Amino acid sequence: MSKPVIKPQTLKGFRDYLPGPMMAREHLIDTARRVYRGFGFSPIDTPALEYSEILLGKGGDETDKQLFRFTDAGERDVAMRFDLTVPLARFAAQHLQEIGTPFKRYHIATVWRAEKPQKGRFREFIQCDFDTLGTDSNISDAETLLVIHDLMERLGFSKFVIRINNRLVLNGLLEHLGLTGQTVGVLRTLDKLPKIGREAVIAEMTEKVGTTAAQADAVLKMTELTGSSAEILSQVETMIAGNEQGLNGVNKLRELFTWSAAAGVPEGRISLDLSIARGLDYYTGTIYETFLTDLPGIGSVCSGGRYDNLAGLFTSQKLPGVGASLGLDRLLAAMEELGMLAAASTPAPVLILLFDAAHTGDYLRIARRLRAAGIDTEVFCDARNIGKQLSYASRKGFKAAVIAGQTEFAQGNFQVKDLQAGQQTTVTEADLIDELKRVLAPR
Amino acid sequence: MSKPVIKPQTLKGFRDYLPGPMMAREHLIDTARRVYRGFGFSPIDTPALEYSEILLGKGGDETDKQLFRFTDAGERDVAMRFDLTVPLARFAAQHLQEIGTPFKRYHIATVWRAEKPQKGRFREFIQCDFDTLGTDSNISDAETLLVIHDLMERLGFSKFVIRINNRLVLNGLLEHLGLTGQTVGVLRTLDKLPKIGREAVIAEMTEKVGTTAAQADAVLKMTELTGSSAEILSQVETMIAGNEQGLNGVNKLRELFTWSAAAGVPEGRISLDLSIARGLDYYTGTIYETFLTDLPGIGSVCSGGRYDNLAGLFTSQKLPGVGASLGLDRLLAAMEELGMLAAASTPAPVLILLFDAAHTGDYLRIARRLRAAGIDTEVFCDARNIGKQLSYASRKGFKAAVIAGQTEFAQGNFQVKDLQAGQQTTVTEADLIDELKRVLAPR
Repeated sequence: MSKPVIKPQTLKGFRDYLPGPMMAREHLIDTARRVYRGFGFSPIDTPALEYSEILLGKGGDETDKQLFRFTDAGERDVAMRFDLTVPLARFAAQHLQEIGTPFKRYHIATVWRAEKPQKGRFREFIQCDFDTLGTDSNISDAETLLVIHDLMERLGFSKFVIRINNRLVLNGLLEHLGLTGQTVGVLRTLDKLPKIGREAVIAEMTEKVGTTAAQADAVLKMTELTGSSAEILSQVETMIAGNEQGLNGVNKLRELFTWSAAAGVPEGRISLDLSIARGLDYYTGTIYETFLTDLPGIGSVCSGGRYDNLAGLFTSQKLPGVGASLGLDRLLAAMEELGMLAAASTPAPVLILLFDAAHTGDYLRIARRLRAAGIDTEVFCDARNIGKQLSYASRKGFKAAVIAGQTEFAQGNFQVKDLQAGQQTTVTEADLIDELKRVLAPR
Repeated sequence: MSKPVIKPQTLKGFRDYLPGPMMAREHLIDTARRVYRGFGFSPIDTPALEYSEILLGKGGDETDKQLFRFTDAGERDVAMRFDLTVPLARFAAQHLQEIGTPFKRYHIATVWRAEKPQKGRFREFIQCDFDTLGTDSNISDAETLLVIHDLMERLGFSKFVIRINNRLVLNGLLEHLGLTGQTVGVLRTLDKLPKIGREAVIAEMTEKVGTTAAQADAVLKMTELTGSSAEILSQVETMIAGNEQGLNGVNKLRELFTWSAAAGVPEGRISLDLSIARGLDYYTGTIYETFLTDLPGIGSVCSGGRYDNLAGLFTSQKLPGVGASLGLDRLLAAMEELGMLAAASTPAPVLILLFDAAHTGDYLRIARRLRAAGIDTEVFCDARNIGKQLSYASRKGFKAAVIAGQTEFAQGNFQVKDLQAGQQTTVTEADLIDELKRVLAPR
């Protein structure tokens, strides 16, 4: 046999998923899918590769540099998708007649960015987006909020806050202050507030964006209002008195609080944060960010917002929408830190030991019976001694082992070893399923 | 607003998945995952991009030409994976210490091939593989057979046959006939039997491979034996009398029949086919192919086999294994042709109409209650007239609509419209869940 010639390695910024982390990822994605589907969002998929002009269309220079872009064998200029938003815009424009509106879709897929890899940042990762297209209705904004909320609950989080804002309020204030022309600059600076603090924000607004100190102060004042969300919204109404755009935003935010309370969302899970703008001028209405109370430093784990026109580059039909994206890597890191992930690297809880190879047919038959009863079961495949089989079981995180040899088959018995408690019982084949259910029950 | 400037289109050989086909794909993948996990196979994932030398290592010239290969911004020679086998070999070599053996993994992921697109063939598709690595045990071969069988059953197929063979039998016969040096040529030609027929196979073996007519005839004779699998295997034993390799293959095949019968696989689901070799010299033991009785022309929908040494290019440790791959596109096409796919493009069966926007909070509350009871429910988000909402419901394939306005809320009632039967009932909120369960029950 020839010697190995190629070093097995992955590319910088790329990673393999071993069974443990992969099972956690599958659990997260399954939960997201179940919640999205529960609200009537349908799955779609788009190609990993697109014409570069499609992907370059919207992004800024920064995005362009991050593209994995090349010329294919047919001399086409192609690139790997760097997000799921641009493909959604292309998809919606291309299939609009067929899909109709309102169109509610989720899309869970891999994206690629040739950025500098660093801790927690990779060149390949999964995005987990849901959006409602083709409607201005604030009901969709409320539903987006409920999806985020129910998804976080379903994942097992109880201590989290969804912070909401509406760009119309900020825009209204800026209009009221005579700063409409400087909106983008003001909002970009405002987004830095948690990082650089009040003083630096005022300095940047006056020096770089060109506001007066009084204007900058007024913008910050609004983000510093205190009280319940109802109280803050009333104060805002006074601050922007008569500004139609801003008042519209206030009303939409009020509806979100009213409707989510009516739908049964516990108080305190949703909070008004007039300072969040989410940078770029992509969002035009509601804005969402989600923070874990126990790990605020990890940043928002689910963010999104409403936009006016998704696909202007691809169609003249105006497509408003609202949606959000679950931060899979961040959530996985958080769940690991909070001890919310199972340690096992086997999806099956039961291992039938290969105690006596002459009974292989029996082991395979029993495993099939257990699976039919909903108990996932592996039969150890290799003729190794029982100590090695048990250490395999414990390394993989199996919860129970079933043992039967010559003697047991003669007597019609099975040994069931509870691998967590270390106890062993003897049961008949008729009682095997019940005994395993008892051993596997959460304790 | 600016006019659209970019034509929305996908690349040749690539495709979008709209909700209907995507839901079918998700159903298939979910089922495969559930079955794989049921047997204790764990998920893994590897990057879409690898160093080209990794992917080029094994493939022939044909594979090389099919690579989407380019130089990345860091001047690395990289390529998109064209299958999941080479990445598994690289993965196993790289993580061998950590994963240990036996290692049972499934991998469901997208692969890319720059081949000429044609009907049913795309440049981007999903592979759905499972393998057991690091053991020579025939129990793993039996388990592979059971996975294929239970997966087909779970997908709803009852009329299918898994054809099995063992390369040791063919190799033994060739050894017996003094044709060991011509094995690859003989097997490649034999693989064409269903397409070109007996005469042409003999002609090719004698003219191109260099066998005598008698040798070619003997090879074909073995593939033409008739009777039960037990009878055929006995005849083979006589034909290859004394050849150890061949007899070993016969015994392994016998075990597969014995064990799968013991495990409860109905007779006739597994059949011996001594003619299948699956082309290349990759497989060295058991071989599997799966055919739908109603659609034989579609080809094998699940194929695989045993190999001696998976990762010889990347490690000096010998890694034998056995596995198979589900043909997702073929199966989806078959299920569509056989009418096995649901027609709906919504994952949620119930639509709550937006009858009176003043009751939005109530609609959202009721939808949340229904979801908690396991009934996926969409609230129509847009203020459109009821006719339009109902036509949305029927276009998407919702099964029931819930209608309540001013009058109903005053009386505490709901209208439930059975969209399949066209009937409408009136129930109290307390009875709503039971009534919907009745309407949604399979009929």
